Amino acid sequence: MSSEGNHRGFIVPIGGAEDKVGERAILRHFAEICHGRIAILPTASESSETGPRYERLFGELGVQDVRSLPIDERSGAEDPEMLEYLEGAQGVFLTGGNQLRLSTTLGGTSVTDLLRRRHSKEGLHVAGTSAGAAFLSEHMIAYGDHGPTPRSDMVTLAAGGGLIQRVIIDQHFRERDRLGRLMSAIAYNPRLVGIGVDEDTAAFIDPDRVFRVMGSGAVTVVDGSEVEHLSMDSVGKDSPVSIIGLRVHVLVDGGSFDLESRTASPRSVVGAQKG
Amino acid sequence: MSSEGNHRGFIVPIGGAEDKVGERAILRHFAEICHGRIAILPTASESSETGPRYERLFGELGVQDVRSLPIDERSGAEDPEMLEYLEGAQGVFLTGGNQLRLSTTLGGTSVTDLLRRRHSKEGLHVAGTSAGAAFLSEHMIAYGDHGPTPRSDMVTLAAGGGLIQRVIIDQHFRERDRLGRLMSAIAYNPRLVGIGVDEDTAAFIDPDRVFRVMGSGAVTVVDGSEVEHLSMDSVGKDSPVSIIGLRVHVLVDGGSFDLESRTASPRSVVGAQKG
Repeated sequence: MSSEGNHRGFIVPIGGAEDKVGERAILRHFAEICHGRIAILPTASESSETGPRYERLFGELGVQDVRSLPIDERSGAEDPEMLEYLEGAQGVFLTGGNQLRLSTTLGGTSVTDLLRRRHSKEGLHVAGTSAGAAFLSEHMIAYGDHGPTPRSDMVTLAAGGGLIQRVIIDQHFRERDRLGRLMSAIAYNPRLVGIGVDEDTAAFIDPDRVFRVMGSGAVTVVDGSEVEHLSMDSVGKDSPVSIIGLRVHVLVDGGSFDLESRTASPRSVVGAQKG
Repeated sequence: MSSEGNHRGFIVPIGGAEDKVGERAILRHFAEICHGRIAILPTASESSETGPRYERLFGELGVQDVRSLPIDERSGAEDPEMLEYLEGAQGVFLTGGNQLRLSTTLGGTSVTDLLRRRHSKEGLHVAGTSAGAAFLSEHMIAYGDHGPTPRSDMVTLAAGGGLIQRVIIDQHFRERDRLGRLMSAIAYNPRLVGIGVDEDTAAFIDPDRVFRVMGSGAVTVVDGSEVEHLSMDSVGKDSPVSIIGLRVHVLVDGGSFDLESRTASPRSVVGAQKG
């Protein structure tokens, strides 16, 4: 969509409930990629404990320059001190909570303008867990129903943070039974690729739009590029939607997916069996 | 968002029911801008008469090379003959009907890839009326309720054609009382600018993202860039949403709006009173 020739960073949706006491593989790997200052945005959370908790966590993982920016209203997202700290960050971490708090508080502010600009041009890495993951993409699932069968009114979309285009990210995926709502989102327009991330699992999406899975769960890819027929335009409210030709991949730790060529591998490079 | 240095075309949302028998100012002006081949995409419509009708209309306005491409299933959107005709077009016109027919039939196909590529790089002009207008933007209103007060479940968004970013377009705007649903869409994320287009009215959005209004109705702009507070993240379903600081402009024929600087003028250049 944009920025050929610029220096893009990683985008890292995490499905929520990532390990915070054991090996902490996902947070550790994000810290390694950033290799420098990490700013925490706890805006999604209503708890004032959330930001400081991640400060401690990243500090324990060896990140020396880490700070939580407690932005909970729109005026805070124009604060010069917050913006200056973000200008010097190598990574930004969006906590969980409610993704509509992120879009209503940060949408259209200097903070999201900065994140998009520095991500696409200066290699800023951006991770988000749970609500923070949902907010990363241009199209965001605001809320929806659980269950496996897609229905026309199963999912409510809104504009998200716009850090990555042509995907839609769902989280707590297996734990909250969200395949139906992700398929519904794709059935509106199969131009998007659905990425459903389980808890304690992350998709590390690199600057070439190839992602690798890390964690104890799976990432489910819903690819509509070969869909032959969809009934989303003609079904009544609350009715199941007909979809012919959807491709679905379930990828575990080490698996990868290329969002451009739409090809999946059980393990990237090494080609071993799944763990 | 993209393509600095490339040659972008016009995007022209029309609110539906544009004059087809009198002066036909909107269709005439679109034909003048295109100054060459116009391809008609009647995919939104279930009537086989819609495409041929616009063929005749543009023919009467002096367009010599005009053809309706009757694509009504996804396989048709990969047809080499259709794609070849579109490669040679200076303008594309999307008819009315149901915007979900557009997103489900054309989303993720070679036709929409071609439209986006040629619009952003080769100056292809794209107009849409009614459902065709809704489909032009990245975020599309699929359907919703009427009325003036925004509510949390008033509007259903889906991914649209993606020809223009950071706006959301509504149509039949005054006639179907849609201010509430457009405000609801902006209340999810004020990064987007809402453009509500009345019937027989168009916004001619130029390559620099400045649009001029033409027609017998108005274009209503809903700008959330100065919003101080939103309650969309905390209200219950079907509850009214609190919004503080929304800016609204109602622009009539000759008025203009700059989507980048967010500034409105009652008449561009000449500065006269509104008609």
